[in-house]
Amino acid sequence: MVNGDLKIFSGMANNPLAAEIAAQLGTGLGEVSIREAPDSETLVMVKESVRGCDVYVVQPTSAPVNDNLMQLLFIVDALRRASAKRITAVIPYFGYSRQERMAHGREPISAKVVADMLQAVGVDRIILTDIHAPAMQGFFNIPLETLSAVPLIIDYLRQQDLSDSVIVAPDVGRAKLAEQYAERLGVPLALIHKARESATTSRIVGMIGDLRGRSPIIIDDIISTGGTIVETAHAVLNAGARQNLRLAAVHGLLAGSASERLDQDFIQEVILTDTVHIPADKRTPNMTTLSVAQLFSEAIHRVHNENSVSGLYLLT
Amino acid sequence: MVNGDLKIFSGMANNPLAAEIAAQLGTGLGEVSIREAPDSETLVMVKESVRGCDVYVVQPTSAPVNDNLMQLLFIVDALRRASAKRITAVIPYFGYSRQERMAHGREPISAKVVADMLQAVGVDRIILTDIHAPAMQGFFNIPLETLSAVPLIIDYLRQQDLSDSVIVAPDVGRAKLAEQYAERLGVPLALIHKARESATTSRIVGMIGDLRGRSPIIIDDIISTGGTIVETAHAVLNAGARQNLRLAAVHGLLAGSASERLDQDFIQEVILTDTVHIPADKRTPNMTTLSVAQLFSEAIHRVHNENSVSGLYLLT
Amino acid sequence: MVNGDLKIFSGMANNPLAAEIAAQLGTGLGEVSIREAPDSETLVMVKESVRGCDVYVVQPTSAPVNDNLMQLLFIVDALRRASAKRITAVIPYFGYSRQERMAHGREPISAKVVADMLQAVGVDRIILTDIHAPAMQGFFNIPLETLSAVPLIIDYLRQQDLSDSVIVAPDVGRAKLAEQYAERLGVPLALIHKARESATTSRIVGMIGDLRGRSPIIIDDIISTGGTIVETAHAVLNAGARQNLRLAAVHGLLAGSASERLDQDFIQEVILTDTVHIPADKRTPNMTTLSVAQLFSEAIHRVHNENSVSGLYLLT
Amino acid sequence: MVNGDLKIFSGMANNPLAAEIAAQLGTGLGEVSIREAPDSETLVMVKESVRGCDVYVVQPTSAPVNDNLMQLLFIVDALRRASAKRITAVIPYFGYSRQERMAHGREPISAKVVADMLQAVGVDRIILTDIHAPAMQGFFNIPLETLSAVPLIIDYLRQQDLSDSVIVAPDVGRAKLAEQYAERLGVPLALIHKARESATTSRIVGMIGDLRGRSPIIIDDIISTGGTIVETAHAVLNAGARQNLRLAAVHGLLAGSASERLDQDFIQEVILTDTVHIPADKRTPNMTTLSVAQLFSEAIHRVHNENSVSGLYLLT
Amino acid sequence: MVNGDLKIFSGMANNPLAAEIAAQLGTGLGEVSIREAPDSETLVMVKESVRGCDVYVVQPTSAPVNDNLMQLLFIVDALRRASAKRITAVIPYFGYSRQERMAHGREPISAKVVADMLQAVGVDRIILTDIHAPAMQGFFNIPLETLSAVPLIIDYLRQQDLSDSVIVAPDVGRAKLAEQYAERLGVPLALIHKARESATTSRIVGMIGDLRGRSPIIIDDIISTGGTIVETAHAVLNAGARQNLRLAAVHGLLAGSASERLDQDFIQEVILTDTVHIPADKRTPNMTTLSVAQLFSEAIHRVHNENSVSGLYLLT
Amino acid sequence: MVNGDLKIFSGMANNPLAAEIAAQLGTGLGEVSIREAPDSETLVMVKESVRGCDVYVVQPTSAPVNDNLMQLLFIVDALRRASAKRITAVIPYFGYSRQERMAHGREPISAKVVADMLQAVGVDRIILTDIHAPAMQGFFNIPLETLSAVPLIIDYLRQQDLSDSVIVAPDVGRAKLAEQYAERLGVPLALIHKARESATTSRIVGMIGDLRGRSPIIIDDIISTGGTIVETAHAVLNAGARQNLRLAAVHGLLAGSASERLDQDFIQEVILTDTVHIPADKRTPNMTTLSVAQLFSEAIHRVHNENSVSGLYLLT
Repeated sequence: MVNGDLKIFSGMANNPLAAEIAAQLGTGLGEVSIREAPDSETLVMVKESVRGCDVYVVQPTSAPVNDNLMQLLFIVDALRRASAKRITAVIPYFGYSRQERMAHGREPISAKVVADMLQAVGVDRIILTDIHAPAMQGFFNIPLETLSAVPLIIDYLRQQDLSDSVIVAPDVGRAKLAEQYAERLGVPLALIHKARESATTSRIVGMIGDLRGRSPIIIDDIISTGGTIVETAHAVLNAGARQNLRLAAVHGLLAGSASERLDQDFIQEVILTDTVHIPADKRTPNMTTLSVAQLFSEAIHRVHNENSVSGLYLLT
Repeated sequence: MVNGDLKIFSGMANNPLAAEIAAQLGTGLGEVSIREAPDSETLVMVKESVRGCDVYVVQPTSAPVNDNLMQLLFIVDALRRASAKRITAVIPYFGYSRQERMAHGREPISAKVVADMLQAVGVDRIILTDIHAPAMQGFFNIPLETLSAVPLIIDYLRQQDLSDSVIVAPDVGRAKLAEQYAERLGVPLALIHKARESATTSRIVGMIGDLRGRSPIIIDDIISTGGTIVETAHAVLNAGARQNLRLAAVHGLLAGSASERLDQDFIQEVILTDTVHIPADKRTPNMTTLSVAQLFSEAIHRVHNENSVSGLYLLT
Repeated sequence: MVNGDLKIFSGMANNPLAAEIAAQLGTGLGEVSIREAPDSETLVMVKESVRGCDVYVVQPTSAPVNDNLMQLLFIVDALRRASAKRITAVIPYFGYSRQERMAHGREPISAKVVADMLQAVGVDRIILTDIHAPAMQGFFNIPLETLSAVPLIIDYLRQQDLSDSVIVAPDVGRAKLAEQYAERLGVPLALIHKARESATTSRIVGMIGDLRGRSPIIIDDIISTGGTIVETAHAVLNAGARQNLRLAAVHGLLAGSASERLDQDFIQEVILTDTVHIPADKRTPNMTTLSVAQLFSEAIHRVHNENSVSGLYLLT
Repeated sequence: MVNGDLKIFSGMANNPLAAEIAAQLGTGLGEVSIREAPDSETLVMVKESVRGCDVYVVQPTSAPVNDNLMQLLFIVDALRRASAKRITAVIPYFGYSRQERMAHGREPISAKVVADMLQAVGVDRIILTDIHAPAMQGFFNIPLETLSAVPLIIDYLRQQDLSDSVIVAPDVGRAKLAEQYAERLGVPLALIHKARESATTSRIVGMIGDLRGRSPIIIDDIISTGGTIVETAHAVLNAGARQNLRLAAVHGLLAGSASERLDQDFIQEVILTDTVHIPADKRTPNMTTLSVAQLFSEAIHRVHNENSVSGLYLLT
Repeated sequence: MVNGDLKIFSGMANNPLAAEIAAQLGTGLGEVSIREAPDSETLVMVKESVRGCDVYVVQPTSAPVNDNLMQLLFIVDALRRASAKRITAVIPYFGYSRQERMAHGREPISAKVVADMLQAVGVDRIILTDIHAPAMQGFFNIPLETLSAVPLIIDYLRQQDLSDSVIVAPDVGRAKLAEQYAERLGVPLALIHKARESATTSRIVGMIGDLRGRSPIIIDDIISTGGTIVETAHAVLNAGARQNLRLAAVHGLLAGSASERLDQDFIQEVILTDTVHIPADKRTPNMTTLSVAQLFSEAIHRVHNENSVSGLYLLT
Repeated sequence: MVNGDLKIFSGMANNPLAAEIAAQLGTGLGEVSIREAPDSETLVMVKESVRGCDVYVVQPTSAPVNDNLMQLLFIVDALRRASAKRITAVIPYFGYSRQERMAHGREPISAKVVADMLQAVGVDRIILTDIHAPAMQGFFNIPLETLSAVPLIIDYLRQQDLSDSVIVAPDVGRAKLAEQYAERLGVPLALIHKARESATTSRIVGMIGDLRGRSPIIIDDIISTGGTIVETAHAVLNAGARQNLRLAAVHGLLAGSASERLDQDFIQEVILTDTVHIPADKRTPNMTTLSVAQLFSEAIHRVHNENSVSGLYLLT
């Protein structure tokens, strides 16, 4: 008990995941009141003593991202002022992680702004999953546990017949991730080659690698509106791939009409995890959701007991 | 030109005010792209060079407060990385200013979290108006210009017949503000005495001062849902005040059904300023809106030219 | 013993209180040498090992405020460099707490300067009592325990006949504090209405609430020279109050000729606490001093053992 | 002259480049004494007044990387203490930029350690070229100018016959960079697919894209020992590419026996820039060196005069 | 005028020196109100605009050291919040400079506490004179101008007959300073050898160097109570030195009964400077006071105009 | 076990000392991989879990000083990111400690740059030995344990016949150190008086104290090239001292041809410690090396167990 009692708190972003993590740790969620005032301010009050405790706050910063982020910051501020011994922010999905550099000049590095806020408010440690760019680790000077849910997806895929499969990267930025899938699953690799049409749009100009007669698995780290990945799916099928197309990504943001886009005949399966909460009305019949609860509860258990977390890492 | 060129930027919270301030300064608004991505992330891009400039970003952090706040932070981060010489955040209404202390234990001090974020992101100076608690000045180590729009309201009231008026404070927390009105207008003062019923609700238990036959002017710093002030209005009228009741406050948040509550026969006039943008559908026939544009443009003019701003202060 | 051994140290400001706190905790004061060199420098040396200990330094920063403050800072610096595990500054009276905002432009926020110094020198936690403005909590990012000695005074008053009493606030700035007394004691409330005559002086212009035939209890947070409160006492008596006037305040600075001012027939009782040491020659026959030792020893006991301190808070 | 006089200083890492930059800016190098003491300490003394000046220190942190880095830090510390108005570190090659994440657990993020050191010592701004991972921008909170020398290489290649060329990425991590070359030169793209054999070694397992009969241009950001790129060259030739193989990279570290490896018949041309100084004995007959001096002098000119630098950026 | 208008402010520690410095710079002292409240708090208000100005605050932190230090900090805080462009603390005597290390374990490093406070409150630059230990420069990360008044004393001594003089260091800690005098005046050197008797006292055990028949000049950096230097004087005379003994030190604190101790027949002359204000009643007939006003006004003039200050340094 | 498991790591600077310290603590060295990449970058990987551990990294920053320093920083960064509970840098010799002030203007304070780096990278505590200037303690705000190896040398000397010995300081800067030797050994003191010839060279102009017929022991804190101390040795012998000259210093850097200079007939003995590793080829027949391993293992033992370290200090 060198780190004090273990307590798990949840913001409002993914309560089911937080509850499941707590259950696997043999405890319940700590009591906290979070509400939105009529003037839209976020009001937080921690309702039980955390003095001297080892506290974990589970909150992916998915949509509404600004509200979820501020919630997390206010919870942490309240915990620190209430004398929690150690505060770990457990952020299964890290919002703004794709704003991790100045792509076109005169932009913010929003992911760094968020990182600085988390550190300023007194977070002692962060548990993350599959951040967009590994160098984001350097945005922090506090210890990070960078978990990966990719092995969950790989284990799931391994149980299937992959004899004629091909891993497809939807653009060169995902080539490295695709290579990891390909290498671990022992299947070939292909990638889509695009040309930028403007600052924010691009156009598929080619495909590198052979897809003909192969069962494509298009991978990505995040599915947001689904626009890119569905466009990729069309290109893959046009290139002669077999029709049993699968899509796999860790973070299912499913923004806008993503679910409609994904719920189509030519997409055999969409494989996601529950780092972001997927409400019932966004689930589609072809969607498989793998839970990260066991991964996170194991990580928290080891961190709390000062055991090595290394075995849970994925090389990146 | 010791501080470089003057540029005014606006977030999305109160564009009309920002545009009017810029116009009074003989310039236009700087070009910046702000949009919400489908996954709810705020995307900011400054579209013109600010290198070496003296930049002012006008953004009250009114509802949606978290979005408006993050917008402001990202604009400032972009400006700093784009080498603006000096960045002033002009925040006519400072969201979370009523969360400036731990009222009940285990709460965040949200206003301090916001203050730390503004300083962390590289704001050099802040221009504020009528913050809820003057001690909030000490949340900052950068220079503040704390303007007051109360004199605008006082000047407006002075043009009216105040011979039988009384200034009413809706609770003891506003007694000091009410005293300022009373002293400057030369009218008597009354205040409502409440008892707390729970952590968030209270009940009027009495009235201190004489209201009979007097024309009441209920003052406050903020009108949020209007619930408190309208409840106060009823009590004031019940206490024998004349029926020509007026309400005055600097910041008109007008949350929820505030406009409906205020648009009633027994309220002769609601006096507000435009620190927070009041859209057309929230304006009521009995509402008077005074503009702070001239106050802010004068303050910015002086700050830019290193002239004294003292004359614009209100004693608090 | 998770926080190491408990040790209590005292500066020179209120040794009797510190000794009593230590005694109630079943220990003695830690040995420290503090002396003023001939050239007026404060020389501090901690005389026993504090390595790995949970150390509390009791030092109200009352007069001579600068010397007491520097003493506190030097003791903390010595403790930190001597590897104390955790350092809590116990500051029953926080000097400069009335300089918590810029009232007239171009002033320091002296309370923030002090707060920054305490944090810079490595204080881990602060225990305060009845600070002048609750928003001062936001001057700190370290945990605070904000105790209140007002319940001590209220409990003392409750033992007396309050049937015709009235709580009087000496100015609108104390209206909220007065309301707390009134509400908890179940007696009515009145307040003095003043007009500013210059930056530092003001004049009583009226009284809000009815005092006739009532036994007045004038409350304040601090009695410094006693000038204001005695002037208020005269006004209260002139307004027809009964002659059995009582004064109550937590912090008795008793500066200058305060004791002479308070030692008068028309003041039946002056109720103070010992947050600030009151030497024998400043005590007057009509003075009642309530001790905060039990309050502080209980708070320290709970903090040391990581038990909740919430029960000791007063809502503010 | 709003930023004071412009002065250019050079560490010992790339004096020819610094001198050329200064010459193009119409000035000479500032006088600074740098020497290694017998006990290996780096001794720095700035020999001319820099008070109030806008100072640029040119120092790629190439081998010996630790010595060059410490030199840079000590020069900056001396300049800051000598009251330079603004200090820009011009770092054409940023050592440790490939240690920008924890790849295998329990590693330092060395690039962040370096970034923190630069900021701690008081650098106001940094000019970089083609950093390994764009997210490294977020390691800094000071303004960065991230130049790219890739357009120099592209312009050089454009002057040649590219009708049958193909751009080859030596691994998936360089796929994005290769795509930029391919897109801008209008030639197809291929990439090498590798499998990790151990934490530090990997093996080519395939090639994606068609090389047969094409003139290959293998690109990379850095050539260190040349081992990887030469191994890639063999694979490319074995895959049926034409024999007129070219290699292109911005940073030519040429560590160990790199020059011997590159000086071979089957490599028609090695295209590098002078971000890192290439001494005469490391130059090979097939090596083309393009100078970044004009790029840097233009950037410094604009920064000094507060003109926009955007035109000099490459999208990344 | 690149740094804005020059303004000189003075705390209460050495107003005559500040006024003389201002006069030599062709200006007057800025208006600031400083007073001690009845409860001993220091109240500061800057009475003129300093917005955009280059401000110098002259305040030696001599006795009462804590009050003078807090005054300085509050003035600086007020200036910063009032938007001074650049604030230089001019500290002719730096109090606590002899507490610059932990001599006996469990002591504060008081000089570092003071340095951290000055930097925390926003001082941009400091001008010092003859600090006790040169390594104290490293307590600061802001630019320092470390002036020396020793050349003033040396120039004064040079005008006298030094043919048979000897410079005497009162202990080995002053050997280096004594060597500077000896070398520059071309006279021999002697030093007193002491043995520690307790933590704070020591005893003269010997003399190194020959004093017989020589005119001794005992040097020190500070004369506090005069105890040490007078004890040294006796030893020197006992060792056979000539009776025309002179004492020289930069900083004349003259604590306690120092003046009485120094005003004796066997001391021909006491040479001091006015870094610390010496009131009329502490001046003795054998005391010579050299003014540092010209040195400081020249330094300020150069700093304000960004001219090199190097020529004013003494090697240390 | 309040501080977690004790682990000792070593950089490459003095592995034998680190191993001996670990052995005396009854443990072995923690496994860490440190290597220099072909491009000269330092690559560090900690090979065992340190989560929750109390870790000590032994690394004198002797030559190659920059490489050894960066190694230390990278090891600490890796340990912190790997969640070590507490990290103590054990730096038996602190490189750059003689660059602890600006001696000639426009120099860095390199020792402060190093101190800031150590603190920025997250070192919690530092154990040092015999730093050049005690005021360097104030460069740190984290706890320091400042050990001294001088008592080791004194104990060694005490075992010898000192009846006609004299302690000689090679310049006035070492007078205080020499006095400590003299006082503790009960022998007389002499010192060399030098005149500066240029910024970096000086010339012996005299000797203070009587050496004739005495056995000289020249002391210093560091022997670098040996040039100064050997020159002093000649002067001492020329001044009539006996021929059995001994040299003693804590830190034997033995840079350049130091060993040749020291290996001469007229030097009877050179006494050093092993704070810096002295390889076999630098050892001379007249060299005695005393080990600090026991001193350091005792200090680490006490720090780990939160026992007082005071007894191990030398007054300075």
